[in-house]
Amino acid sequence: MSSEAAFVPAPTNVRGALYPSVSADGRALFRLAAPEASAVQLHLAGGQCTLGDGPFAMQRDADGVWELTVCPRARGFHYYWFVVDGLAVNDPGSETFFGYGRQCSGIEVPEDEVAAAYYQSRDVPHGEVRARWYYAKTTASWRRAMVYTPPDYDVATGRRYPVLYLQHGAGEDERGWSTQGRMQFIMDNLIAAGEAAPMLVVMECGYATPPGQQTPLPGQRGGVNAFDRLVIDDLIPMVDRTYRTLADREQRAMAGLSMGSMQTLDITLRNLDLFAWIGSFSGPLLREERFDVATVFDGVFADADMFNRRVKLLWVGAGTAEPRIYNPAKERVAALRAAGIHCVWFESEATDHEWLTWRRCLRDWAPRLFR
Amino acid sequence: MSSEAAFVPAPTNVRGALYPSVSADGRALFRLAAPEASAVQLHLAGGQCTLGDGPFAMQRDADGVWELTVCPRARGFHYYWFVVDGLAVNDPGSETFFGYGRQCSGIEVPEDEVAAAYYQSRDVPHGEVRARWYYAKTTASWRRAMVYTPPDYDVATGRRYPVLYLQHGAGEDERGWSTQGRMQFIMDNLIAAGEAAPMLVVMECGYATPPGQQTPLPGQRGGVNAFDRLVIDDLIPMVDRTYRTLADREQRAMAGLSMGSMQTLDITLRNLDLFAWIGSFSGPLLREERFDVATVFDGVFADADMFNRRVKLLWVGAGTAEPRIYNPAKERVAALRAAGIHCVWFESEATDHEWLTWRRCLRDWAPRLFR
Repeated sequence: MSSEAAFVPAPTNVRGALYPSVSADGRALFRLAAPEASAVQLHLAGGQCTLGDGPFAMQRDADGVWELTVCPRARGFHYYWFVVDGLAVNDPGSETFFGYGRQCSGIEVPEDEVAAAYYQSRDVPHGEVRARWYYAKTTASWRRAMVYTPPDYDVATGRRYPVLYLQHGAGEDERGWSTQGRMQFIMDNLIAAGEAAPMLVVMECGYATPPGQQTPLPGQRGGVNAFDRLVIDDLIPMVDRTYRTLADREQRAMAGLSMGSMQTLDITLRNLDLFAWIGSFSGPLLREERFDVATVFDGVFADADMFNRRVKLLWVGAGTAEPRIYNPAKERVAALRAAGIHCVWFESEATDHEWLTWRRCLRDWAPRLFR
Repeated sequence: MSSEAAFVPAPTNVRGALYPSVSADGRALFRLAAPEASAVQLHLAGGQCTLGDGPFAMQRDADGVWELTVCPRARGFHYYWFVVDGLAVNDPGSETFFGYGRQCSGIEVPEDEVAAAYYQSRDVPHGEVRARWYYAKTTASWRRAMVYTPPDYDVATGRRYPVLYLQHGAGEDERGWSTQGRMQFIMDNLIAAGEAAPMLVVMECGYATPPGQQTPLPGQRGGVNAFDRLVIDDLIPMVDRTYRTLADREQRAMAGLSMGSMQTLDITLRNLDLFAWIGSFSGPLLREERFDVATVFDGVFADADMFNRRVKLLWVGAGTAEPRIYNPAKERVAALRAAGIHCVWFESEATDHEWLTWRRCLRDWAPRLFR
């Protein structure tokens, strides 16, 4: 088929897998061999057109192969899975990505080369993403932090670096930013272009159950989450002890997406002795409906001059296609500005609550840090 | 149920997932909610008792939850999946592990504390596992190497280190040794005890399709694999350029398991100018049936004295419960020894073609290197 000739395996596939495949015009073709199934559907986070996330019915051929071509609303990364007679299953052709509290299929629908250049692996010096195991008192367990070190870290051995703590969203974990988010390539490219200061980026899992407490089931909310204590009592001390950091509030930033944005605000605004750079990616700034500038976050915004002197950057971004986040965030940024708080507002054009939004947030946010 | 009280979530589960669960006496309890399914089976690599890998029928309860308790032949790590009405699917409760050319569920059935101590994360200095992206001419693509750096690497900045190249098996990839294999904990513990020399361990994907060639479908054999060229022309030069290595044949080792053992022999025995330490984990030493010491591998064993002078260590190990590997390997080691070749033979008691065999191999092999 001539139309099919334009499809190539998605870059998120496991090696050799032909499906899902993607076309230059942004379509994605999914296939699953399930001859005994009665009905197979596709659930695609980020959805297609105006139809939502699905599930969308797939069509069976004579050999029992189910197929569907969709055009996601935005390109970039989307979680997906198949629903086979009611059972959610992964696609064996896809790499897995931790989301929804489980390992999930994912598809990268490529943008054009120019739009995608900032998050591609290019011929520039590359940093590393290091898996660092450490014992955390807060959880009484061994944990893994992912640490991005910039390209010159092992060469400039007399140099010390500022640190960005960068958090994933609900149901994800410390791997999200370096797989779905492609943060290492974004940082490599920004640093190579001289647009961002060389920095460490530390990514940990935003869930921390203290000993004796029950960890919520996958996908469940609630339970005791001591992530704030983990960051302050375990993670920052470990990072400053282990890496050549500039262990100072003006050399320490934190940002996060969605749930991670709320954790970032909770942790940084209540610990301004530790952080001077604050980023909220796709967060409403406050879980509660009422946002009173004078009283939210223990009144940290009540004295705008003092806040502006202490906080080097308050940065808020959201996708224009995620109204339930975009609208309250934009309103609250306006309220903060009206009260004299310096705040950067960033919009990701036509993207929803998805990783393309957060890649763009990181690209805008990182160059502003540590200047 | 009192018998169930002894089951705890498997350490390989995603956070909060209660199933699969494992008991102190080595049983594993699997559950899957699939109310619409007509038949659900468990496929467990490494099998149980003498029944093989399955599939084993699971039992449905009134709510459509399917359950089965099995006792794997050996503890340690086993790949598994469910077969739901003929379709192989992963367990949403499990982390995924790359094997069989796809992301696969896996379960760790814990050994007792003493037996497992060597591969647990313990209170010793920890190294890192670093994801290193580099451009490979052989494949004309960006690739990822995983690099273990020992605990003192960033502190002893004047020190240079020997390098072990360590390969996974068929259908796996560069992540296998640091997930299924727990190599970083094995190395940390050996180095902390003074039993192994601090070294770098480099793990790459053993598949390298040259440009213009077709990558085999997942799980398929065949196709052009230029992994030997990749190691020699791309990987070793990159590692020696990027890390503080001792770039000398007497400071360079290679080992691999199964397919990786064959690649190790192919690469090292034909490039003794590059390697002086050679390890074969669960490999038959030669794919062909006829093993003529005088002629195999281009006659490298024909002059035993010369071989023994050049090669610091030839090490061969296998599990006693994998006769199709164990028997030919043992026979061929005997033939090599009869011809005067120095060769270490290692047996992993009662384990099959599985990761517990290879953890034990690494524990025995690594302390012998670079002495």
